Amino acid sequence: MLELRLVQGSLLKKVLEAIKDLVNDANFDCSSSGFSLQAMDSSHVALVALLLRSEGFEHYRCDRNTSMGMNLGNMSKMLKCAGNDDIITIKGDDGSDTVTFMFESPTQDKIADFEMKLMDIDSEHLGIPEAEYHAIVTMPSAEFSRICKDLSSIGDTVVISVTKEGVKFSTRGDIGTANIVLRQNTTVDKPEDATVIEMNEPVSLTFALRYMNSFTKATPLSNTVKISLSSELPVVVEYKIAEMGYVRYYLAPKIEEDEDENETKPQV
Amino acid sequence: MLELRLVQGSLLKKVLEAIKDLVNDANFDCSSSGFSLQAMDSSHVALVALLLRSEGFEHYRCDRNTSMGMNLGNMSKMLKCAGNDDIITIKGDDGSDTVTFMFESPTQDKIADFEMKLMDIDSEHLGIPEAEYHAIVTMPSAEFSRICKDLSSIGDTVVISVTKEGVKFSTRGDIGTANIVLRQNTTVDKPEDATVIEMNEPVSLTFALRYMNSFTKATPLSNTVKISLSSELPVVVEYKIAEMGYVRYYLAPKIEEDEDENETKPQV
Amino acid sequence: MLELRLVQGSLLKKVLEAIKDLVNDANFDCSSSGFSLQAMDSSHVALVALLLRSEGFEHYRCDRNTSMGMNLGNMSKMLKCAGNDDIITIKGDDGSDTVTFMFESPTQDKIADFEMKLMDIDSEHLGIPEAEYHAIVTMPSAEFSRICKDLSSIGDTVVISVTKEGVKFSTRGDIGTANIVLRQNTTVDKPEDATVIEMNEPVSLTFALRYMNSFTKATPLSNTVKISLSSELPVVVEYKIAEMGYVRYYLAPKIEEDEDENETKPQV
Repeated sequence: MLELRLVQGSLLKKVLEAIKDLVNDANFDCSSSGFSLQAMDSSHVALVALLLRSEGFEHYRCDRNTSMGMNLGNMSKMLKCAGNDDIITIKGDDGSDTVTFMFESPTQDKIADFEMKLMDIDSEHLGIPEAEYHAIVTMPSAEFSRICKDLSSIGDTVVISVTKEGVKFSTRGDIGTANIVLRQNTTVDKPEDATVIEMNEPVSLTFALRYMNSFTKATPLSNTVKISLSSELPVVVEYKIAEMGYVRYYLAPKIEEDEDENETKPQV
Repeated sequence: MLELRLVQGSLLKKVLEAIKDLVNDANFDCSSSGFSLQAMDSSHVALVALLLRSEGFEHYRCDRNTSMGMNLGNMSKMLKCAGNDDIITIKGDDGSDTVTFMFESPTQDKIADFEMKLMDIDSEHLGIPEAEYHAIVTMPSAEFSRICKDLSSIGDTVVISVTKEGVKFSTRGDIGTANIVLRQNTTVDKPEDATVIEMNEPVSLTFALRYMNSFTKATPLSNTVKISLSSELPVVVEYKIAEMGYVRYYLAPKIEEDEDENETKPQV
Repeated sequence: MLELRLVQGSLLKKVLEAIKDLVNDANFDCSSSGFSLQAMDSSHVALVALLLRSEGFEHYRCDRNTSMGMNLGNMSKMLKCAGNDDIITIKGDDGSDTVTFMFESPTQDKIADFEMKLMDIDSEHLGIPEAEYHAIVTMPSAEFSRICKDLSSIGDTVVISVTKEGVKFSTRGDIGTANIVLRQNTTVDKPEDATVIEMNEPVSLTFALRYMNSFTKATPLSNTVKISLSSELPVVVEYKIAEMGYVRYYLAPKIEEDEDENETKPQV
């Protein structure tokens, strides 16, 4: 028996929008500690990890650990039928091959039940060790989204270079080159407008913009994004979900062999 | 000689948007009592009836009963050229094969005349008898539109079931099932937000969502929609046009032979 | 050495949107007096002329006259990466085959450099003599845009007819005819809402709506448009750029041989 009641149902709608373009089918794991998901994207290049802690739900009942395989496209279709102010409850019975999403309008005058078939999905849960990163950039999520989108109109990859002074996003393509530099900036009116750089050593890494643009689908979940970079590790792009958990994306850097010196060394 | 001057010209624009997807060509009938239309949709499944009473026009002159065959797509193209605040006048001369739509801006600085060719269209006017209905549901038109759209993402048909407590809209499709229940609710701040159920006996009927979605194109005409249901009659979906008349849609229920018991009995 | 700093960078973004659909590749000419462009559209029917005077720039350095061939589609892609409040600087080095667009955010926390390859483009600069026009119509640019768009849903050409009382825009097509008359009107609250007609003699000329619709892409640059008409000359459609210059479009009238009398004589 599973019953998870989320007053701010729009969060779940946003979570689905954040992951459904990257992952087609995935197991949602439900335990006493929370509702979570870990999945590779369909081309097995990026990894997405979601956590919604049990404390964030108004009511959270999960009698035993359960894994529910869902088609995220179909789940998104159903969640789109929930109003933005609706309370969403996820319900499952032990051994059932369906899951039910219940949407209650704030006035309780409209109650909807959407029942979806579950799927059997093979998946292995990867252990992701805590790691030390060379540099961590925290910045407004909308700015990161804008930069990824803008650079995509010029090239296919982005070089992210971090120094103490700032972070540089670069690309090149047939029509020319682009460099966008953000300076560290903590003297802002609103904390979420800050760009904060924690750096142990300079780093410069290349990533496919296609994936970065998929990651920015999580922008509505959080005003800020945290980008953790290390030369030996996949980048982590993390969007915190207020008081509940996070969506994290992992992507290995590209090894660009024919890059010239200017590109591979940080030059912010 | 025909001259119908409608100060709130945007009403006519909305009427055309409400019917043009359903009906390609139709006769508008003009008499001393009003401007009206009755037409089957192009697949001869649904019927639409429009009435704009003469009292609703600022100036209404119709010397003799006239039937004007128009292509609604072309008429819509012309009416889209009227501003939302424009006064619209429909003009016709006896025996002429054209109709003129005149648009006057509120300041009278811009005057447009659009002349459209008329068509010969065979049509028979069906008498629609007043009938007793098992149940009549009055509800916010935007809510009805939202429900039809939401259910269309799951299935092709909707079962509308009415009991004293409320109205239930259900569908099923490959990815699962959906049930949306609206409770009777008359204690609302604005009368147009009420859901009111007048019921003589419970009723449960199945309709093609494709047509229901076409009917909801009339949503901008009225804050509320009235749905009249009876097991032996086509459903009537009615949008009132303030102080002038209505757009009504008629659609026969589907007979679903392989439906299971749960579907055909009301269970709100 | 070239360095042109434009505080209101959004102007340059709007200029590109105003010309990029009409012209694929063009030379921008830079001299001590300003930054300009003159180019035929790709079908060699219309001419576009742009001037941004040096006084309008916050900083303007142009050591010697330079002509820079650019692909306007690519330039537009880059300028779209500038924020609407960004300061834009155009930079070029003598003999370089690239141009750099620098975008600075108002807070200076984000600096972007976009470098674009230049092209060799053959072009001859046409001298456009000052001319006397039969009639000059000044009107709200949004109204002109609306009229061209509306008439395009009916026909392919517009007849513009000017008399002392007003200006008439007419078209005809398969579904009917349309006439839109604007009266001279100078008693308006805001000067930019006025329709002003300066007329030496009545004029009635026919133009392809396709080009007129391209010209109206300049609407965001100015609240008003000035249309100069003469029977022996191309029409000039001019959008002033506040305190800096203009975008002007030139288009030769169509000679319609099978036009009936009603069409070729002004009848406002």
